[in-house]
Amino acid sequence: MTLHKIQYKHIIENALLEDFSKGGDLTTDALIPEDAMGETVLRAREEGIVAGLNASLYAFEVLDPNVKFEFYKKDGDLVKVGDKIVKVSGNIRAMLSAERTCLNLLGRLCGIASFTNRLVKEVEGTKAKVVDTRKTTPGFRVLEKYAVKVGGGFNHRFGLDDAVMIKDNHLAFSNSLTEAVQKVKDYVGHTVKIEVEVDTLDQLKELLENPVDIVLLDNMTPEVLKEAVTLVNGKMITEASGNISIETIKSVALSGVDIISSGALTHSIKNFDIGLDRY
Amino acid sequence: MTLHKIQYKHIIENALLEDFSKGGDLTTDALIPEDAMGETVLRAREEGIVAGLNASLYAFEVLDPNVKFEFYKKDGDLVKVGDKIVKVSGNIRAMLSAERTCLNLLGRLCGIASFTNRLVKEVEGTKAKVVDTRKTTPGFRVLEKYAVKVGGGFNHRFGLDDAVMIKDNHLAFSNSLTEAVQKVKDYVGHTVKIEVEVDTLDQLKELLENPVDIVLLDNMTPEVLKEAVTLVNGKMITEASGNISIETIKSVALSGVDIISSGALTHSIKNFDIGLDRY
Amino acid sequence: MTLHKIQYKHIIENALLEDFSKGGDLTTDALIPEDAMGETVLRAREEGIVAGLNASLYAFEVLDPNVKFEFYKKDGDLVKVGDKIVKVSGNIRAMLSAERTCLNLLGRLCGIASFTNRLVKEVEGTKAKVVDTRKTTPGFRVLEKYAVKVGGGFNHRFGLDDAVMIKDNHLAFSNSLTEAVQKVKDYVGHTVKIEVEVDTLDQLKELLENPVDIVLLDNMTPEVLKEAVTLVNGKMITEASGNISIETIKSVALSGVDIISSGALTHSIKNFDIGLDRY
Amino acid sequence: MTLHKIQYKHIIENALLEDFSKGGDLTTDALIPEDAMGETVLRAREEGIVAGLNASLYAFEVLDPNVKFEFYKKDGDLVKVGDKIVKVSGNIRAMLSAERTCLNLLGRLCGIASFTNRLVKEVEGTKAKVVDTRKTTPGFRVLEKYAVKVGGGFNHRFGLDDAVMIKDNHLAFSNSLTEAVQKVKDYVGHTVKIEVEVDTLDQLKELLENPVDIVLLDNMTPEVLKEAVTLVNGKMITEASGNISIETIKSVALSGVDIISSGALTHSIKNFDIGLDRY
Amino acid sequence: MTLHKIQYKHIIENALLEDFSKGGDLTTDALIPEDAMGETVLRAREEGIVAGLNASLYAFEVLDPNVKFEFYKKDGDLVKVGDKIVKVSGNIRAMLSAERTCLNLLGRLCGIASFTNRLVKEVEGTKAKVVDTRKTTPGFRVLEKYAVKVGGGFNHRFGLDDAVMIKDNHLAFSNSLTEAVQKVKDYVGHTVKIEVEVDTLDQLKELLENPVDIVLLDNMTPEVLKEAVTLVNGKMITEASGNISIETIKSVALSGVDIISSGALTHSIKNFDIGLDRY
Amino acid sequence: MTLHKIQYKHIIENALLEDFSKGGDLTTDALIPEDAMGETVLRAREEGIVAGLNASLYAFEVLDPNVKFEFYKKDGDLVKVGDKIVKVSGNIRAMLSAERTCLNLLGRLCGIASFTNRLVKEVEGTKAKVVDTRKTTPGFRVLEKYAVKVGGGFNHRFGLDDAVMIKDNHLAFSNSLTEAVQKVKDYVGHTVKIEVEVDTLDQLKELLENPVDIVLLDNMTPEVLKEAVTLVNGKMITEASGNISIETIKSVALSGVDIISSGALTHSIKNFDIGLDRY
Repeated sequence: MTLHKIQYKHIIENALLEDFSKGGDLTTDALIPEDAMGETVLRAREEGIVAGLNASLYAFEVLDPNVKFEFYKKDGDLVKVGDKIVKVSGNIRAMLSAERTCLNLLGRLCGIASFTNRLVKEVEGTKAKVVDTRKTTPGFRVLEKYAVKVGGGFNHRFGLDDAVMIKDNHLAFSNSLTEAVQKVKDYVGHTVKIEVEVDTLDQLKELLENPVDIVLLDNMTPEVLKEAVTLVNGKMITEASGNISIETIKSVALSGVDIISSGALTHSIKNFDIGLDRY
Repeated sequence: MTLHKIQYKHIIENALLEDFSKGGDLTTDALIPEDAMGETVLRAREEGIVAGLNASLYAFEVLDPNVKFEFYKKDGDLVKVGDKIVKVSGNIRAMLSAERTCLNLLGRLCGIASFTNRLVKEVEGTKAKVVDTRKTTPGFRVLEKYAVKVGGGFNHRFGLDDAVMIKDNHLAFSNSLTEAVQKVKDYVGHTVKIEVEVDTLDQLKELLENPVDIVLLDNMTPEVLKEAVTLVNGKMITEASGNISIETIKSVALSGVDIISSGALTHSIKNFDIGLDRY
Repeated sequence: MTLHKIQYKHIIENALLEDFSKGGDLTTDALIPEDAMGETVLRAREEGIVAGLNASLYAFEVLDPNVKFEFYKKDGDLVKVGDKIVKVSGNIRAMLSAERTCLNLLGRLCGIASFTNRLVKEVEGTKAKVVDTRKTTPGFRVLEKYAVKVGGGFNHRFGLDDAVMIKDNHLAFSNSLTEAVQKVKDYVGHTVKIEVEVDTLDQLKELLENPVDIVLLDNMTPEVLKEAVTLVNGKMITEASGNISIETIKSVALSGVDIISSGALTHSIKNFDIGLDRY
Repeated sequence: MTLHKIQYKHIIENALLEDFSKGGDLTTDALIPEDAMGETVLRAREEGIVAGLNASLYAFEVLDPNVKFEFYKKDGDLVKVGDKIVKVSGNIRAMLSAERTCLNLLGRLCGIASFTNRLVKEVEGTKAKVVDTRKTTPGFRVLEKYAVKVGGGFNHRFGLDDAVMIKDNHLAFSNSLTEAVQKVKDYVGHTVKIEVEVDTLDQLKELLENPVDIVLLDNMTPEVLKEAVTLVNGKMITEASGNISIETIKSVALSGVDIISSGALTHSIKNFDIGLDRY
Repeated sequence: MTLHKIQYKHIIENALLEDFSKGGDLTTDALIPEDAMGETVLRAREEGIVAGLNASLYAFEVLDPNVKFEFYKKDGDLVKVGDKIVKVSGNIRAMLSAERTCLNLLGRLCGIASFTNRLVKEVEGTKAKVVDTRKTTPGFRVLEKYAVKVGGGFNHRFGLDDAVMIKDNHLAFSNSLTEAVQKVKDYVGHTVKIEVEVDTLDQLKELLENPVDIVLLDNMTPEVLKEAVTLVNGKMITEASGNISIETIKSVALSGVDIISSGALTHSIKNFDIGLDRY
Repeated sequence: MTLHKIQYKHIIENALLEDFSKGGDLTTDALIPEDAMGETVLRAREEGIVAGLNASLYAFEVLDPNVKFEFYKKDGDLVKVGDKIVKVSGNIRAMLSAERTCLNLLGRLCGIASFTNRLVKEVEGTKAKVVDTRKTTPGFRVLEKYAVKVGGGFNHRFGLDDAVMIKDNHLAFSNSLTEAVQKVKDYVGHTVKIEVEVDTLDQLKELLENPVDIVLLDNMTPEVLKEAVTLVNGKMITEASGNISIETIKSVALSGVDIISSGALTHSIKNFDIGLDRY
């Protein structure tokens, strides 16, 4: 996936201004000569998957258009503790002033990719794909879903506007699930997939009479999921969700579902630890 | 603290557009009548501290300027599982389309306030204040530091421009700590405080010959911290940082430091779980 | 479809500034008293379908927050020459200064809805849906696709990011169509539909060995289209495109295709004629 | 006329984001290698005048700062079917992802320039200049008026703020045309021209007693226009408007008016057909 | 002149964020209860002309949408030391936090209007109009030119795009003044006025052979100006510029020129002193 | 201090658009060939201190990315009448179209630096530092405070959010100064300095019982200031303000205060006169 600069430049620029929109970087401006040049290196302080390098390093480019990068790792690569990720050569003031902005973004994106990758590794050997949700940081959805993909996961819909997902709240204004599905089919264009959330096997059976593209099997035990997969029998893509964790995901995957989606991929991530050191 | 709408409106508006900048909320638009009105309630699904209500609820206001809120809780209040936080009355389409944006922000801010509050509770009875860092989500620094304050913590500097913090990297271009401190004093205005990071008691002793406003005692054990506090003897504000967790913070506080700062308050937060239910 | 104000407000506000970013509306400011109030009416000067009222009338709201509208017609309604569409009551200066901005947008959107509706009427009785393309005015895609929908058409994908469309240019880097389709299936998430463009029945036959969701039958005669529809036999959604006009669309529809897409719906529209008259 | 990048960059950047603000260009990202380089050519598919190259090609520059252009034609040149306009060399992904944005803008601007040029050709040999109006696409006024100029036409005022145009609605609050003209003269600065719209020769005669810079002769037949031109006798610039078309413009021009203005130059344009082909 | 909110809202909002984009108004938030209501009054501390009330008071509206204003003076009114201008009723925190932003803008605009008015008073009885230049604060041209108008002056062109001004630098690429004037006439639309700068009577004589709309008589003594006015004899509007001050303007005006333009109206203004006091 | 481009680019770009957002620079575009290249020089027309070169010259860069600068002076340098500041080589159209924007900003910033420098020179030999206020042009605070620093002055707080200043209005809601100071200490973080304004020596004595970081001695005569300095005796930083002028500042400084702050540094500046001449 090509992540273009116009998709993230405002995020980095706004973040930089959080740090020196007023009197500049007081410490750096007082102590480092304006034209001092040097080299630093981004180094992993834990093990995981790199994601978001271009977007994060743009922080340095904004303050020093002549900065040079030498890459030891690229997005998707595994790093271990102490591994060099990228060497940064350029103006020292720019490096010190942009360091935190770069690391705040990179730490989050590597954190997402690394956690996604752990889940993906867990379900290896099954047919299940690990998929994200819309539980993303406001304004960072593209970046965070990109990190999921870099980590080996796949993306669920990006917004309310690129796929249909019928939930309980939506059904309240229809006479039946069947009627609701028909309303949606009449409404959306031919390029849009339709997903319906069901909580019980009875709901699933009703849906199977008028199947849609995807069924969301919400909060079911592995046993019930297995039964659901058998019922669906390939007529819809099956997606499991609810309480997915590193401990539970394997058993969910073994139920035979096609997709396992988890909000935790993006909404509760520990920043990945990276340091900016002297080269 | 008054958080004004101009400080967060772009965040909410951008996040809403992530969800329906294209063909709208397909599911809702297909199934819910345009003028359907109703009531929903935000309800806590875990125990913690509420933070960020105004900013988060603005998501509903954007889509329905006539939406009404009835508040059961306000920022800073403790909620338990199942507690109602606020009743939302208005257009149903607007509510469903804005739900995720609201919860994505509110979940994060309540998560920060709740975790901060746990740390604050841990150090009760000591003189230590719990303080945040600049390890914040790019563009969310004000909101996240607000949540820290709501949770009972205090704010460290907001940027590189409102206080000085001299670290190793900065010293490389000076002959001595003393010279660096003097350069900074010559450079900054009279309203700016100066902080210096030290890693050892020897550095601390050197600094004490020309004390500044605040000393950051980085990565020291509680025992060494205690010794440092004794050495400083009130001549500078003492701040401890490094590996602060719910398990360690009490022992750090008992060393007698004035301030304990922790990046974990903002950079590794599990979203607080809140649901939007039918009222 | 709910079109929210945050989706169009910048368009209207920028357009207003085109008209008076400098010394104001010189004529109006010189001749109309600042507090003069009055009533005007938007009246159709040709026959067609109304679309885009809210977005267009926002021009008046920007300059006069107290302006009142009384609607005779709503989006989707048919108007004939001379029909009143909406009465506008408020400050005269605001009305005159915003008139052209309002009409420039409304004229375009009604033009699109009206032309779409003519095509839709042409294919009545067949199964074909009339669908737009990405040949839209830069920055107006949502508004223009909304107008297509109001006119009775349906929307094709909104961007390169919500559905796949494999064309010749994309195939150049794969060994075969089959390989390309497989690459795409491996790449995209489970909510994304895949469409492939074919120019000949031979290509179609190859595609049918590994069918996707939608096939674009490009620039085929009605006879060839009929043959293609027979070959597809319901295994994919069939979409015809190329040289669709008011004269040709019926014969295309009679071939039995599901979808007829046309760039002309949005890229070559005569503005619909509406006047702002004294009430 | 120099059209500077700051005048159009937001238009192109916003339009690109319409196409891949979410998961990127799915098809291209799946099938084309990230570093694939190549050459394509923009080629005319009909005959007309080129306009807007720099602004339109900026779409490629945004996604590939190293893209190179080799120009066969420049703004204002005539192209025939099949003529190469510009060769584009660079990253293939960037080219395919930016293609539609580029063509959507270029097609519109060439369409305007080409239609303008046809009208200009029609009136060759008369003194009449072909002039645009404010009936432009919201936000595109500068670009569209630029295209009119490239096509050999001239620009009427750009906004309500750079020239005065007194119409019926404005007169309602004055006792007489004379009083209105005087009010305007008292109000505006010395660099501003004043135009008055008249519908009849009687109104024209009244105006001639206190002439202004320009008189708009609205919706008059060629015969009446000729009479009006005789009456004015060079004391004001004469401008004809209303129902100007390729069929009628010559007869209007032969009346001897100085200026013929037409909304159709910008408000009802068929996009000019241009293709992006492999070089 | 109607100054619309969309013309200045970004200026006020950006300025407010200069004051509390970080931790809020620390002093006010610490000391004033969130819901404290009260009344304050803007009071003149010197004598002059009020200008820019709506734009300046918008600072209060941004922070307190329910704020109420009671006006004692309006734009254009004369105030003396101690005069009340407007009473502000609403939330105290909002008032204190917005005070400086409001006064910074209002002080500048009243300063411009007041100085303009002094010059206008000086030339009373002559035919000369006092006119501004493009020497305005970047981004404030509309507001500052509005203040000139409020003070009784008139506006010169707003930009390089609404009137022509030929200066020495422009002539370097033409063979003669006559050729340059002709080039410009061929280039610009019929609504645009043309002005030429001359430094000597010889240049003026050359220009008079092919007169334009306005002649700028630059840096001439009153005696030479008088001679110039006689030479022009009403064939062009005469404008004097260069070293216009409160001491010299009367003698310049007595030369008989139509227009006196002065950069000092906007580029070197002492802020008008206004205080925000308890009511 | 490093002033980064992201801190001022919007100011310059907006200002340029004030000049040619419509039909371009009419005069230049008509008379200067599009590809004409040449050299000009910025030359001082009065004596003073240069400030803001990078930000101001960015106006040329925007219109001509290949423009070259050769610097004779840099920020902080003294220039005398006729001194060359910088040579500008590049496209002539760009130079002429950007000239006014560049000079409008540069003139203001040099004006501030030059006036600041005169005050700084006046107090040489005393311990007093010359300091600015928040009385800055809306949106230009960073640039204007930068100019103060370049001129040899120092910066007071940049906003309401980076230091506390307790004034009368704030005290109204507390029982005593002591209580207010305590409230503030309880509220703000440990990196924030606290300043209190006092008008009389009695207030000062009360404050000295619970001293803060800085005391603002407002509108006191040099004699009273001297007494105040003696009372404070180094326990707080002393700052004098009120009616500071080139005539009075020396006597204020001789009182022994640490800081002299003056709104006049930024709110009432005469633009510094600089010309753009042919090289």
